[in-house]
Amino acid sequence: MSDRKLDVIGERMYELISDLYPICRSITGNGVRNTLERVRQQIPLTVHEVPSGTPVFDWTVPREWNIEDAYVITPTGEKIAEFKKHNLHVLNYSVPVHKKVSLEELKPHIFTLPEHPDWIPYRTSYYKENWGFCISHNQLQSLPEGEYEVFIDASLEPGHLTYGELFIQGETSEEVLFSCHVCHPSLCNDNLSGIALTTHLADYLTRQQLRYSYRFLFIPGTIGSITWLALNEEKTRNIEHGFVVTCVGDGGPFSYKKSRRGSAEIDRAVLHILRHSHEGFREIDFYPYGYDERQYCSPGFNLAVGSLSRSSHGQFPEYHTSADNLDLVKPQYLKTSFETFVDVIDVIENNRTYINLNPKCEPQLGKRGLYSNVGAPSGSKIKEMALLWVLNLSDGQHDLLSIAERSGEPFDDIRKAAQALLSCGLLKEVSGSPIA
Amino acid sequence: MSDRKLDVIGERMYELISDLYPICRSITGNGVRNTLERVRQQIPLTVHEVPSGTPVFDWTVPREWNIEDAYVITPTGEKIAEFKKHNLHVLNYSVPVHKKVSLEELKPHIFTLPEHPDWIPYRTSYYKENWGFCISHNQLQSLPEGEYEVFIDASLEPGHLTYGELFIQGETSEEVLFSCHVCHPSLCNDNLSGIALTTHLADYLTRQQLRYSYRFLFIPGTIGSITWLALNEEKTRNIEHGFVVTCVGDGGPFSYKKSRRGSAEIDRAVLHILRHSHEGFREIDFYPYGYDERQYCSPGFNLAVGSLSRSSHGQFPEYHTSADNLDLVKPQYLKTSFETFVDVIDVIENNRTYINLNPKCEPQLGKRGLYSNVGAPSGSKIKEMALLWVLNLSDGQHDLLSIAERSGEPFDDIRKAAQALLSCGLLKEVSGSPIA
Amino acid sequence: MSDRKLDVIGERMYELISDLYPICRSITGNGVRNTLERVRQQIPLTVHEVPSGTPVFDWTVPREWNIEDAYVITPTGEKIAEFKKHNLHVLNYSVPVHKKVSLEELKPHIFTLPEHPDWIPYRTSYYKENWGFCISHNQLQSLPEGEYEVFIDASLEPGHLTYGELFIQGETSEEVLFSCHVCHPSLCNDNLSGIALTTHLADYLTRQQLRYSYRFLFIPGTIGSITWLALNEEKTRNIEHGFVVTCVGDGGPFSYKKSRRGSAEIDRAVLHILRHSHEGFREIDFYPYGYDERQYCSPGFNLAVGSLSRSSHGQFPEYHTSADNLDLVKPQYLKTSFETFVDVIDVIENNRTYINLNPKCEPQLGKRGLYSNVGAPSGSKIKEMALLWVLNLSDGQHDLLSIAERSGEPFDDIRKAAQALLSCGLLKEVSGSPIA
Repeated sequence: MSDRKLDVIGERMYELISDLYPICRSITGNGVRNTLERVRQQIPLTVHEVPSGTPVFDWTVPREWNIEDAYVITPTGEKIAEFKKHNLHVLNYSVPVHKKVSLEELKPHIFTLPEHPDWIPYRTSYYKENWGFCISHNQLQSLPEGEYEVFIDASLEPGHLTYGELFIQGETSEEVLFSCHVCHPSLCNDNLSGIALTTHLADYLTRQQLRYSYRFLFIPGTIGSITWLALNEEKTRNIEHGFVVTCVGDGGPFSYKKSRRGSAEIDRAVLHILRHSHEGFREIDFYPYGYDERQYCSPGFNLAVGSLSRSSHGQFPEYHTSADNLDLVKPQYLKTSFETFVDVIDVIENNRTYINLNPKCEPQLGKRGLYSNVGAPSGSKIKEMALLWVLNLSDGQHDLLSIAERSGEPFDDIRKAAQALLSCGLLKEVSGSPIA
Repeated sequence: MSDRKLDVIGERMYELISDLYPICRSITGNGVRNTLERVRQQIPLTVHEVPSGTPVFDWTVPREWNIEDAYVITPTGEKIAEFKKHNLHVLNYSVPVHKKVSLEELKPHIFTLPEHPDWIPYRTSYYKENWGFCISHNQLQSLPEGEYEVFIDASLEPGHLTYGELFIQGETSEEVLFSCHVCHPSLCNDNLSGIALTTHLADYLTRQQLRYSYRFLFIPGTIGSITWLALNEEKTRNIEHGFVVTCVGDGGPFSYKKSRRGSAEIDRAVLHILRHSHEGFREIDFYPYGYDERQYCSPGFNLAVGSLSRSSHGQFPEYHTSADNLDLVKPQYLKTSFETFVDVIDVIENNRTYINLNPKCEPQLGKRGLYSNVGAPSGSKIKEMALLWVLNLSDGQHDLLSIAERSGEPFDDIRKAAQALLSCGLLKEVSGSPIA
Repeated sequence: MSDRKLDVIGERMYELISDLYPICRSITGNGVRNTLERVRQQIPLTVHEVPSGTPVFDWTVPREWNIEDAYVITPTGEKIAEFKKHNLHVLNYSVPVHKKVSLEELKPHIFTLPEHPDWIPYRTSYYKENWGFCISHNQLQSLPEGEYEVFIDASLEPGHLTYGELFIQGETSEEVLFSCHVCHPSLCNDNLSGIALTTHLADYLTRQQLRYSYRFLFIPGTIGSITWLALNEEKTRNIEHGFVVTCVGDGGPFSYKKSRRGSAEIDRAVLHILRHSHEGFREIDFYPYGYDERQYCSPGFNLAVGSLSRSSHGQFPEYHTSADNLDLVKPQYLKTSFETFVDVIDVIENNRTYINLNPKCEPQLGKRGLYSNVGAPSGSKIKEMALLWVLNLSDGQHDLLSIAERSGEPFDDIRKAAQALLSCGLLKEVSGSPIA
């Protein structure tokens, strides 16, 4: 893809984030529906509605939450913590409330961030009924004694859990899963960036010739992946590789949290690309915390799902605060993230295993014109070392990715060399996985 | 165990060392008997007597050595190298001698330590008949020419090899072995410290509910372990884990010499505890030298026996000299050593393998009150991360120790999490070893 | 071998190099024949002649090249690039030419080394017909405009590919292969040094009692090994270990390029010797480039062939230039290289697997006089630790080399210990490879 095209995609991802930023999302409710509606302007998502009360493994789909307005009126008549000014002001999933309370009664319902006294924290109370407000710590400090009016016009009623899904059929039924969470309100990196990248990746892949089938999920965190897994258990058998997509819009170095398996093909593919393209990336062993990889990698599924991000879960100061806003994410960061995902997809799409049909001594490459390609115009050139590595290791026990790993050559050079050798009849593809 | 109780144990170990210090021990004889008699004041040791001449594998139980007195009278009439002042003065296992010799004739029978000219070395001649004296190098330098009277009132006659044994029956017949050598005379760290720690560990374990059975051996070095192994070969099949206990009273950092197997459960358990509790510990690969692990780890037995000590074999300047005395060992060092052994026993006693009964996605911990335990009073609290790790890795292929190793969480937290999950029916114990 | 004998061998290797240096070799022709004739003065090589046109796997034996003379006459009448002064002046495998050309027409046929303006490069054109001259860059810069006479009196005609072979029958039919390339003209380190070392190694081994059979190949690079492999495919099954011998005469630190297998016995043996004898050696993973190991390690053969050299392929500035001359290589470097090969051969000849016949506890070494050997005169002494290691690890799963690796003791000490234990009936040899 040209750099110009990538620039455009970066800009369009940022626009999508900007459009979605004002919406108040939660794990259920109209915020999710409105979000998916906007995504549907770009890709043909199917929207699923799962009724409250549906049992999903050890959990139950919760009641649906919707909110119209919320605020606090201070003893001096000032209106603060206005939901309409910033939807982080309300404790997400608050029950409705309208009453007068003393400052002392109010305080247990107020959440602040003393270490960042100007920022509003993001807090939720999904599974325990509560109401509350999130404000800056400075504002909390300035509140006078007296009577406060608290008002939250929200509803928590039987309804549905809403999620979006897009399936792209490839040549085979083996699937690559992309999963992003759509439950966070006005927070850009976590996870409007993930929504934007997943949307544009789906858009891009729709127009490619694909070996794998691709499945994109736009789901609320935790309960969404549990719901999808519970209702689609048989489909998980086709998932060969997967990603949880989040935190891809900030300027931090890349991070990759490996799947529980630790050295699945997707783990090796991502790390290969990061090693060759991104200095200072972080490789993180799987741990059972973070985002929806917790569910995909639970021992009963143990899917090869990793998480490729920039700053990672909880590891940036703006995480889950009002500072995770439109200034934190930038088109150029989104663009590079997008490009990195495309590079990884390129590896898994093209990772094949071949047999050298002339395994005894080297074939004479010169008479096949393969040496003359050395020094050909950039983009089409075939590296001599890549040719020799592919020939030497194509014994049925090494796929192209393992040849790239062992040789230190970029996958793309190895792939081109294999293609050239295939063209002149020196290789044959082996079906199935390599033996080693 | 409370820190106060541990302090008392540290003091009592030191007392035991003080009581045993004056006794002249060797690989046979009354020194061993008197030592075991003192230990029997605390734990119900069985004392075994094996006749001289008994064939034990490639060896033969030697004649019994006893000594009454020994000294040298110099040309000026001075009495030096007096056994009654320090039993290291006599070459251990010396044959009796009483004659007059020139300085030149005497010198080959005198052993000193030029690099520590004030210390008396500890020397033995078990398997080659000889007589000799050990003195300070300074004293040797000052000896005048002339006639010396040498006197050793010792006997080397058919008798017995004496050792002590205590067996504590646990729930299963699988055994943990503790072996300490009782052949060294007035030397504190090597190995009165090992005798004291083994005695107090036996005393402590007698009062515990135990999964494993425990066997304690108080034996002379080399010939003692060979004798026990030869006479108890069938019992070795039950030994699952074992320790040679020595050098646990000095102030050096902890050392662990691994079993010949290298990654036996006991090796992993000890290293886990050391990693979490003791900065700067040393991990030593097995080598076929040192103490009785040489016999337990000979290829025909290959038992999972390691050696957890502070300073290790030969690695402290006072080793096998008169400076390995009551000043080198201290109650607080003995206490911490004891505590570390107890921690390791805690790991092996509690290392089980479980299956997550809700393996598909995470179970909802909140509704079982398991999140509410977070932040409970110290000592009873259950870490959320430990819960998640146990759930994620309880697939039948990971025992709790391997979950602790992979998660980086202390074993004790992992164990408590497993207990809590077991209580609410989320885990089931798997019998047998994990598959992986 | 005594140091004096080694000195003589170093000198004689250097003499052989000096004798061979003036000869113009190529992949075929009389240069190779004359070279082999000189080697035959020392060892009874069989010389093989393979007709041009013989198909060898994917290749064909090329026409034979011979050259009488070559030079260029400048517009001022000066004779330059004279073959008779330095055979590197002619592009190796040049077709005959005799004509007048302008400077512009000449330049594409001139090869120089701008980064070393005084040196003549070594260039070949085996598989594409061409003619050319190699001169110093300074000379190129000084050439005036005008008409040049170019003259190459060479022939490229059906004939033979010539190679030399020597086979030494040992006790078993399992073979060790030494392969050196004989196609380079006046270049000393690459590869007259390899020819000289291989010749003297063959000479030395002819007079030894050998367990393995040894095969020595003196072949042109690439096409020579391909030809030998194609015509002797069934013999490759006997090759247990092998070396490509080159670049063993310069003063650089040792390098070892491992076989494609990576941890074959030969790889372990070489690295063991280098670790114990040569500080700062380089360990190089196999890569499918370099010398004839490319063919021996092609996936259809995958022989355990490595390359032990000093400076390695392409890694010294004089590589493939006129500076790779009689000043670059020295007798003392050749001597140490020879000695190192002998040490490695000593490892593979003596690497056996034994079973400890007294596996339960240590045997009593003292009664067998094995302790008394400690401190015996250097050269015959047996290390106590080596005895204990051999006893401890002789369980049928460790060969002597792996005992040396694990213990950190030199192989030679381990071998002597095993010999001593064998003599007193404590070991028995196990046939076949160790299990682990």
